[in-house]
Amino acid sequence: MFGFVPELSGVVGLLGYCGIAVFAVSGALDAARNRMDILGFMLIGTATGLGGGTLRDLLLGLAPVYWVREPAYITLCLVVAAITYFVVPFIDSRKRALVWMDAIGLSLFSVTGTQIALTAGVAPLVAVCMGVMTATFGGIIRDVLCGESLVLGGRELYVTAALAGASTHLGLVLISVPDDLALLGGFVVALGLRSAAILFGLKLPAYQGRSGDGQ
Amino acid sequence: MFGFVPELSGVVGLLGYCGIAVFAVSGALDAARNRMDILGFMLIGTATGLGGGTLRDLLLGLAPVYWVREPAYITLCLVVAAITYFVVPFIDSRKRALVWMDAIGLSLFSVTGTQIALTAGVAPLVAVCMGVMTATFGGIIRDVLCGESLVLGGRELYVTAALAGASTHLGLVLISVPDDLALLGGFVVALGLRSAAILFGLKLPAYQGRSGDGQ
Amino acid sequence: MFGFVPELSGVVGLLGYCGIAVFAVSGALDAARNRMDILGFMLIGTATGLGGGTLRDLLLGLAPVYWVREPAYITLCLVVAAITYFVVPFIDSRKRALVWMDAIGLSLFSVTGTQIALTAGVAPLVAVCMGVMTATFGGIIRDVLCGESLVLGGRELYVTAALAGASTHLGLVLISVPDDLALLGGFVVALGLRSAAILFGLKLPAYQGRSGDGQ
Repeated sequence: MFGFVPELSGVVGLLGYCGIAVFAVSGALDAARNRMDILGFMLIGTATGLGGGTLRDLLLGLAPVYWVREPAYITLCLVVAAITYFVVPFIDSRKRALVWMDAIGLSLFSVTGTQIALTAGVAPLVAVCMGVMTATFGGIIRDVLCGESLVLGGRELYVTAALAGASTHLGLVLISVPDDLALLGGFVVALGLRSAAILFGLKLPAYQGRSGDGQ
Repeated sequence: MFGFVPELSGVVGLLGYCGIAVFAVSGALDAARNRMDILGFMLIGTATGLGGGTLRDLLLGLAPVYWVREPAYITLCLVVAAITYFVVPFIDSRKRALVWMDAIGLSLFSVTGTQIALTAGVAPLVAVCMGVMTATFGGIIRDVLCGESLVLGGRELYVTAALAGASTHLGLVLISVPDDLALLGGFVVALGLRSAAILFGLKLPAYQGRSGDGQ
Repeated sequence: MFGFVPELSGVVGLLGYCGIAVFAVSGALDAARNRMDILGFMLIGTATGLGGGTLRDLLLGLAPVYWVREPAYITLCLVVAAITYFVVPFIDSRKRALVWMDAIGLSLFSVTGTQIALTAGVAPLVAVCMGVMTATFGGIIRDVLCGESLVLGGRELYVTAALAGASTHLGLVLISVPDDLALLGGFVVALGLRSAAILFGLKLPAYQGRSGDGQ
C-alpha cells in the first residue's frame, strides 16, 4: 500500500535527530534517578530515544525500522546517554531537567511523527495518531523500564500538547503552508502548551466521580 | 508467504466492529474509574479497542495494520469513548459494566481473531493463538495504561474463555460448519463460559504451592 | 532491503530451540511462584519462550514472525510448560531454578539473536542490539505478566552478560572464526559472566547520587 520512506533529510530529519537526542537525555536522567550503572543509562536512553519512532514504523509497515536501516541513530543515543552519565553530577535538579527535556522531545516528535506518516501516504486522522504515538511512546517505555507510574495519568496536558502539535502541523499542511513552517508552527504550539501546563499546573477538567465510584 | 487480507465484510466484519466498540467502552469506563479527562477516555478507549487486532496484524505480517488502512476504526473508538464520557454519570456500577463489556469483547475477538488468522492462511494452532491474543491484548493494554494489576492473574477463566471460543470456532470450521455458524458457536461458548465464571466465581484448579514456596 | 531468513538449521537452530525451551521453563516456574493454573503456566511459558525472537523478527521486518511460519515452536513451549507444571512439586528451590534457567536462556539468545540478525544482513551495531534484545525481552515479558519488578533494575550484570555474549560472538565472526565456534565462544562468555555475577553478587559501579537526588 505504501512506498518506502527514504531517509528523511532537511528540516524533518534534523528535528528528528534533535528529538531523539533530547529523549535519550531524558531517559539517561531517569536512569540517574534510579542509580543505574552506565549500561543502564545507555539502555534506557536508547529505548526512550528510539521507542516512539519504532512503534510508528511498525504500525505503518515500514519495517525494518529506521534505526535498523540507519545505525547512526543508535550511536547518537549511546553517545548522548554516556555524556549524560558524566555530566549528571553537575546538574542541579535532575527532575526539572528531565521534565523539560521530555517536553522538548514531545513537541519535536509530535510534528515529525505526523510528517513522516503523511509522507507514507496515510489519512489525516491516522497521521495525527502517529504523531501523538511517536511523541508519547518513548516516555511510556522510559517509565515502564524505570518502574514508575505512567506519564499519561498525572502529567499536565501531556497527551493534549502532543495532539495540539500534531493537529496544528496537519492543519497548516492542509492549507498549503510550506512543510518547514508547518513543522515550526506545530512545534511552537505543542511546546508552548506543555510549558504553560508545567509552569502553571494546567489540566483538563477531569471526570468528576461520585462517592462510591469505582465500586 | 501470506496474501493481503482484504477489508473483512459480512459477519466477521460486523462482529469485529462490535468487539472494537465494546472494548472501547470498557477502556473508557476504566478511564472513568481513574478520573481522567475526556482525552484520557478517548486515548484508553482507542488503545483498548484497537490493541488486540494491532498485535495480530503485526505478528501476521499484515502491516500497515488495519486501522491505518481503514481510519473508520479510529473514529468509531473516539466517538464511542466520547459518548461514554457523557453517559458514565448515569451508570450505576461502572465496575460491573466494565466487566461485562470486557466479557462481550473478549468473546467476539476470540472468534474474529481466529477467523482472520485462518483467512491469512496460518496453521490451526497459530490461528487459535491469534484468537486468544486478539481477545486478551486489548485488556492487557487497558490495565497497563490504567496502572492496574493485569487481567491475567486473578480473573476467572479469562484466558480459558478466549481459548474455548477460539478452539470451538476452529473445530467447527474444520468439520465444515459454515463460517457464520462457527463464529456464532465459538462466541456463545466463550461468553457462556466467561459469564458463568463471573457469576459463580469459577476458576481452574491453581497450582498448590508448598509452605516456603517462592523462596 | 533484506531477504527472507530461511528456517535456521544446524547449530543456530538447535541452540535456538534450547533457548526457547529453557525460557519456557523459566516462565512456567514464575507461574508456579504466582500459583497460576496450568493454562497460566502455558501462557507465561509460551510468552517468555517466544517473546524475544518475536520482537527481533518484527524490528527486522521478518513478519510473519518465526512461530507463525513454524508452529512447532509453540508446541515446544506448550509441552515444556505442561511438563514443568507436573514436575514443579519435586523442585526444591523454584527461585534458584528460575534464575539459572533464565541465565542459560539469556546466554543462548544473546548469540543466536546476533547471528540471525547478521544473517538478515544488518550492520554489526544493529546485530548486537538485536542479540541483547532477543536475550532480555522474554524475561521482561515474563516479569510484566507476573507483575514483578523488572529484571533490568536490580539483577546482577543481566544486560551486561547479554551484551558481552553478543559482542564476543560478533567479534569472533568478524575475525573469521567459524560460526559454530563463535556461537560457542559468545555463549561461554555470557554464561560465565552471568554465573559469576549470580554467585558472587557482582554489579557494575552504579551512579552515585547525592543527597537530595531525585528531587
